[in-house]
Amino acid sequence: MKKLITNVELLHTPNGEMHSIAIDGNKIVGIDVADFVADEVIDGKGKLATPGMVNTHGHVSMTILRSYADDLALMDWLNNHIWPVEGKMVAEDIYWGAMLGITEMLKGGTTCFADMYSEMDSVAKACDQLGIRANLCRGMIGFQGNAMDALAENVKLFEDWHGHDEGRIRVTLGPHAPYTCPDEFLKKVIATAKEKGIEIQMHLCETLDEINGSQKDYGMTPIERMDKLGMFEVGTIAAHAVHLTDHDREIMAKHNVRIAHNPQSNLKLASGIAEVAAAKKAGIVVGLGADGTSSNNNLDMLEEIRLAAMLHKATTLDPLVVPAAEAWQMGTLDGAKVLGFENVGLLEPGYEADIVLWDMHKPYWYPRHNKLSLLVYAASANDADTVFVAGKKVLEGGKLVTFDEEVIYKMINERTAALLAK
Amino acid sequence: MKKLITNVELLHTPNGEMHSIAIDGNKIVGIDVADFVADEVIDGKGKLATPGMVNTHGHVSMTILRSYADDLALMDWLNNHIWPVEGKMVAEDIYWGAMLGITEMLKGGTTCFADMYSEMDSVAKACDQLGIRANLCRGMIGFQGNAMDALAENVKLFEDWHGHDEGRIRVTLGPHAPYTCPDEFLKKVIATAKEKGIEIQMHLCETLDEINGSQKDYGMTPIERMDKLGMFEVGTIAAHAVHLTDHDREIMAKHNVRIAHNPQSNLKLASGIAEVAAAKKAGIVVGLGADGTSSNNNLDMLEEIRLAAMLHKATTLDPLVVPAAEAWQMGTLDGAKVLGFENVGLLEPGYEADIVLWDMHKPYWYPRHNKLSLLVYAASANDADTVFVAGKKVLEGGKLVTFDEEVIYKMINERTAALLAK
Repeated sequence: MKKLITNVELLHTPNGEMHSIAIDGNKIVGIDVADFVADEVIDGKGKLATPGMVNTHGHVSMTILRSYADDLALMDWLNNHIWPVEGKMVAEDIYWGAMLGITEMLKGGTTCFADMYSEMDSVAKACDQLGIRANLCRGMIGFQGNAMDALAENVKLFEDWHGHDEGRIRVTLGPHAPYTCPDEFLKKVIATAKEKGIEIQMHLCETLDEINGSQKDYGMTPIERMDKLGMFEVGTIAAHAVHLTDHDREIMAKHNVRIAHNPQSNLKLASGIAEVAAAKKAGIVVGLGADGTSSNNNLDMLEEIRLAAMLHKATTLDPLVVPAAEAWQMGTLDGAKVLGFENVGLLEPGYEADIVLWDMHKPYWYPRHNKLSLLVYAASANDADTVFVAGKKVLEGGKLVTFDEEVIYKMINERTAALLAK
Repeated sequence: MKKLITNVELLHTPNGEMHSIAIDGNKIVGIDVADFVADEVIDGKGKLATPGMVNTHGHVSMTILRSYADDLALMDWLNNHIWPVEGKMVAEDIYWGAMLGITEMLKGGTTCFADMYSEMDSVAKACDQLGIRANLCRGMIGFQGNAMDALAENVKLFEDWHGHDEGRIRVTLGPHAPYTCPDEFLKKVIATAKEKGIEIQMHLCETLDEINGSQKDYGMTPIERMDKLGMFEVGTIAAHAVHLTDHDREIMAKHNVRIAHNPQSNLKLASGIAEVAAAKKAGIVVGLGADGTSSNNNLDMLEEIRLAAMLHKATTLDPLVVPAAEAWQMGTLDGAKVLGFENVGLLEPGYEADIVLWDMHKPYWYPRHNKLSLLVYAASANDADTVFVAGKKVLEGGKLVTFDEEVIYKMINERTAALLAK
């Protein structure tokens, strides 16, 4: 199936200049191709085409807990609110939570995301139905009695879903965090990863407590410990990486450990502010993530890109740090690299047709001196009008194409009521 | 003219519970009043009613420069980009810049703002036409040759507009900043303020350079200097207040100097991160501002409220700092106090009918465990559907009622082209 998006503006061409994007199957085959015969023509008049945004870290099913518990101290929040209600959640809650969160992402111009939770088969099904690109893992708490069952589930998830739909779904292993995974368990995870060729996603260096605990228990930083265990011989995504030493950054750069930076979650949970400029200077690939909606509370990647562009200027007192173009790249191309997707994140021939058409007819898109600056510093995720993932149209006129949104809201209300009644 | 908003949800009542708001003229006269006979009934089904947001600092006409110059060092940005183009702006540019910025604010649920610029009669006319509430001042650069003319203009602005439309427009005096205003000029401003009973708006303690310069030139902080000059005997709004000493905070609290905190502008211009928790603890009233769109780059007050709720948790490493309710109050009731508006910022009888109806039918408004948390941490300014200022409907179904938006976009494009061609 061939598609042609016509009359559309691009980020780096002059204001008002119109272009076309030719799509064949799941790939972009050209920009401004002459005589391209398409099965479907999409008029992009008044719209800006960009690659879709990539959300490199989160727990999408927690969307069912959005606004359930906020403004609490971390251990109170976990022990007295989040963990008790999570203990009551069943596969159906996880499925509908994922359906809601994915809907929010697609409607906001995010076409690819990472996820770590349990009952991940339900999440994979939601991705398949709604058409989003994803890198999924089963979150494994190593010190729990079910840890080996969780590892077996994660391997099954890999066997069932990795490479699905021409690589739209990837699967990784998800050991939860250094403080929830003893060495013995991590050795098994790493051996499995090496044996089967699976990458790893892990929360790493999120809080000062985690670093201090690691120094106390192991006499080294979490990064040093994972390095010693051989984890980084496997491709690894480090979620958060707020508190790093220079030595940590050296290790990470050497092994191409990629960072999923979650600026808003790190603020809201009072984890701190990651030294992103230092990580990038060390040569580490940094993508951006929204984390779960219990610690954010939305899945708005444009907000994360904007915050990444702004926050590090103030902490370094340097207005030239993380300019708009760099923040945008972190939220698209570099995010795709973090998640192990090749040929995702640019509007160029050979790249996956993960495309957002932004409606620029809003006051904050005027005047139009610089479209990149408007997108990164002024626009709203709500401006995403039409979205393609792997060449398939998943959003049109701001409405989901692949599923009835009203059913999702209705089911979320029902599941939420049932969950609270338990 | 009496209006009744029916079937609407409120922030602090249970999810799904519907209420009505009775308006008579410019005031709210009751919530859930029985037998209120209205000239117009507005059905608020599916919507959440809140007070409008208050933007306590900015330069709205600079909206015509949005995306013109970003990611530059401060003096390069000012000397080589902003000041040269500002020098070419005429009253018509200032008028249409204000029309665009005010449109953006109203469409995003902001019903009141502060402004400091030149040609302020044009801005006052734009406020009058579009129906927004405002506190306006003429920005005065004390060391420039036209400083005394500027002061005369500011006084005339006060005489022409202060108290207009039952107090919807207020006028203050606008000495620009400590580093642009010598003592001799400030003495004249303060004498004028005392003589005529006018309050003051001023940029204060925005950057470390300003503090260091003040210590070098005057041997004291800018706050100590203004205190010594007697400025704070007049009601004063201190815009930014990023870098304060404990002594500064004592002085400000003692004289009820109010702070306009601009979290996003302070990040983007690399000014630093204000110690808001400390200011509030000292007893200072703190409101929020978006600043000009050259340093933000939008006028989205919900974004500022969200950032205020998140940022200070990370800098203090305390997740209990600035909870959602406190951030919301800073962006509404406290902002109104900062700008000197009484009876603005609450949905209560006797308060001005500055009301926003938010459309909650978006994925990030589900599930609805806590509406305040959803509004502060998850929603979008784009969800503002219907807006009233002083009882007058200015936005309906997301569209401006008081002016044709298309004319504004057309005129902005024309004026921008003319400005760049000069």
